[in-house]
Amino acid sequence: MLKSFTIIAVAAVGIGVGTNYYLQRVPDMPKLDLNRWWGDGDKPNQEDETIRPFKIIFNDTMIDDLKMRLRNRRPYTRPLEGMQSEYGMNTIYLEKLLKYWQDEYRFKERADLLNRFPHYKTRVQGLDIHYIRVKPEAKGKRVLPMLLMHGWPSSSKEFDKIIPMLTTPRDEYDFIFEVIAVDLPGFGFSEGTNKPGLDPLHIGILMKNLMNRLGFEKFYVQAGDWGSQAATHMCTVFPDDILGFHTNMPISIKRISKLKTLIGSLFPSLVVEDKYRHRMYPLSDTFSYLMRESAYFHLQATKPDTIGAALTDTPAGMAAYIFEKIGMASNKNQLHTPHGGLENLALDDLLDTVTILWANDRITTSMRIYAEAFVTSEIFIIYEIPTKVPTAVIKFLHELIYQSDFILRDKFTNIVHSTTLDVGGHFAGLHTPKELVDDVFESVVEFIKFHEKNYK
Amino acid sequence: MLKSFTIIAVAAVGIGVGTNYYLQRVPDMPKLDLNRWWGDGDKPNQEDETIRPFKIIFNDTMIDDLKMRLRNRRPYTRPLEGMQSEYGMNTIYLEKLLKYWQDEYRFKERADLLNRFPHYKTRVQGLDIHYIRVKPEAKGKRVLPMLLMHGWPSSSKEFDKIIPMLTTPRDEYDFIFEVIAVDLPGFGFSEGTNKPGLDPLHIGILMKNLMNRLGFEKFYVQAGDWGSQAATHMCTVFPDDILGFHTNMPISIKRISKLKTLIGSLFPSLVVEDKYRHRMYPLSDTFSYLMRESAYFHLQATKPDTIGAALTDTPAGMAAYIFEKIGMASNKNQLHTPHGGLENLALDDLLDTVTILWANDRITTSMRIYAEAFVTSEIFIIYEIPTKVPTAVIKFLHELIYQSDFILRDKFTNIVHSTTLDVGGHFAGLHTPKELVDDVFESVVEFIKFHEKNYK
Repeated sequence: MLKSFTIIAVAAVGIGVGTNYYLQRVPDMPKLDLNRWWGDGDKPNQEDETIRPFKIIFNDTMIDDLKMRLRNRRPYTRPLEGMQSEYGMNTIYLEKLLKYWQDEYRFKERADLLNRFPHYKTRVQGLDIHYIRVKPEAKGKRVLPMLLMHGWPSSSKEFDKIIPMLTTPRDEYDFIFEVIAVDLPGFGFSEGTNKPGLDPLHIGILMKNLMNRLGFEKFYVQAGDWGSQAATHMCTVFPDDILGFHTNMPISIKRISKLKTLIGSLFPSLVVEDKYRHRMYPLSDTFSYLMRESAYFHLQATKPDTIGAALTDTPAGMAAYIFEKIGMASNKNQLHTPHGGLENLALDDLLDTVTILWANDRITTSMRIYAEAFVTSEIFIIYEIPTKVPTAVIKFLHELIYQSDFILRDKFTNIVHSTTLDVGGHFAGLHTPKELVDDVFESVVEFIKFHEKNYK
Repeated sequence: MLKSFTIIAVAAVGIGVGTNYYLQRVPDMPKLDLNRWWGDGDKPNQEDETIRPFKIIFNDTMIDDLKMRLRNRRPYTRPLEGMQSEYGMNTIYLEKLLKYWQDEYRFKERADLLNRFPHYKTRVQGLDIHYIRVKPEAKGKRVLPMLLMHGWPSSSKEFDKIIPMLTTPRDEYDFIFEVIAVDLPGFGFSEGTNKPGLDPLHIGILMKNLMNRLGFEKFYVQAGDWGSQAATHMCTVFPDDILGFHTNMPISIKRISKLKTLIGSLFPSLVVEDKYRHRMYPLSDTFSYLMRESAYFHLQATKPDTIGAALTDTPAGMAAYIFEKIGMASNKNQLHTPHGGLENLALDDLLDTVTILWANDRITTSMRIYAEAFVTSEIFIIYEIPTKVPTAVIKFLHELIYQSDFILRDKFTNIVHSTTLDVGGHFAGLHTPKELVDDVFESVVEFIKFHEKNYK
């Protein structure tokens, strides 16, 4: 009897220790080629490192062709009787948006609005990368470099409301930001690669090289969506170079985080504060919601070239596909309206995004990031490595995924600022720019304190 | 000690009996409105029951518009270096197919080929339903009525190779078929509904009403894909009217079948013959394959109106989306080729399917079946009710889902013929018509024997 108890006890402890080791073990950083060549063909001996000013132009040929296609589209199948957005994009509502795009959207004015910022391009690791760089008038304040990284289907356009706010001095703060808002490779005005493997990890490396090219050895990052994934990898691979990471889509994909999420479904108070419990649990609600809304993700992760080809020659179709997702990501609970959440954002902002995708033909190249993110083993190793970079998380009400700080700390060991809001959604820069920027200023105070405390 | 053993034993037996009851319990047939109105507005007092001859016409306006759109398409993003169909449709290969569609596909000839069969339309439950009806020359044989039902993205076109084979007498058999090949509502030349709820169950009811309209009280059915789902429901709801069911995509979705599938992952020999084990197990392979290939299903089941709208005005895009799925469904293992499985079928057959979808604008209406199939509770109840209809199953090598007869018998209690082939795929009528028809003849012999034995 004692013997079998001993055996069971030893086995239990063994399993416990083993599981804990498996879950908590920090793997070694994989060897990474920090200058991998993403351009066509082989890496040349001499690379072009020039920085070229750039202007956004929506030219007449593109505009005429686009309007011709919009005029020539076939009539849509109407929504089923009594339905709004429950079966996807409401085609009656869609027609209104497309009519506005065709007849009222001012292509040249919208380009000019973006061109009020200085734009540049430079080749990094073989790809022509576009970015906005705004140096503020310092007015006696410290100027802190901040990289802004968007996700799908956005571009640096997503930041056009917050760039002026980040570069305008505030009385309460003794610092101000020099902003670099980049287009990820294959997005916006940045070139896509023809080589497989450019996943969020390698995008992060490329972005770090871009910042070095611009003369920034150390800098802050603000990001959401895939930009936040790439930035998370930057924080993991280059922890000494990222001075602080502000994310509006913080995610820990570590094994231990998944286990905690599961345990929380039985004992939520172990995992999440009571007042935010409904954002994580019941898990069945989260799964239903993800099942209902994640088919685009599933498709882009497995067949990006199919859906990319399908949307290549139809601006109306591309807009329909993208509008539906932007709407849902801006409000989870508006399926029973014709706009499905779209009216939380300004129509001109939506059309800027779609026009940029269309004009540059970035639909396939931008969708491929979903597939690349699940191919290499390196990325799954790096998920497991925590980062010490001081991190600020802001959680908007309708963000696609919510994790409590208790879980996020598995990955981000130094969360120095955390905000949970009852407003907003996935496209924070367009939806709730003031809330986002206020939080960035507050967070950077904490980043600075963190460094003063830990490194001085 | 004895007491606790008793408690455990009683609890175990209780759980076993309870689980068994839950898994095996046959629910009552739900009340179904067998004349539900699917037309616009309310059901009229007088219904139009006329049967109208119909001819397929690909008219010049449609053809010119289609060719104009194909000519005007934008260049595609090329596949990533070294990739064939791993990221989805290979756009270099796609260009060849589209060029053929634009320059070489003979629209009028292809329509004529279909028009060699007599076509008809008639209104059933408010929807205009198209079908082919071929009466054979009996030549002293018994004439047996057989309904053929296709799936997505097909139409009655899928049967144009097998119709002549089913209506040609064979020396070895004393029967021959009168064939009714129907277009499901919202597919091919059949009208789609504007009302929500037309799921495979209600499609089955509508098909039964169509057969009654044509004067057939009892008949045989051959079907695959969604047609097989609808036919399975017909066999469940009208077991006395279906004389025999031949399916090339047999599926049991009963709870007990799912449990058996799981148990088989531990003890495969309990569930499946050794020689076909690799078609079901390891489950991880099945899941990986389904994860890789089921995004279209996920999208169409959740956002059919979005992807429908996206593909409404681009024939090239619609073709790309559909071609990729047809290729995969014809061969699971050809992702590393540019055609991805497409070359198992004749290009003209593929283009017939796509042209019919395009010309009739059936992309949204046909995709909605995926969403409807998961809405009503009735359908999930009916899944659990077995059918006594004599059933023949044929399992082609590359069919999307394989279940052993041991599992299929949960749903189909009288499987009288079962064939497993090392050839073929999902579109059996186009891919392996001879194998399919031979099996139909053989199976009907068994159906007749079954009825002689059980009802005479």
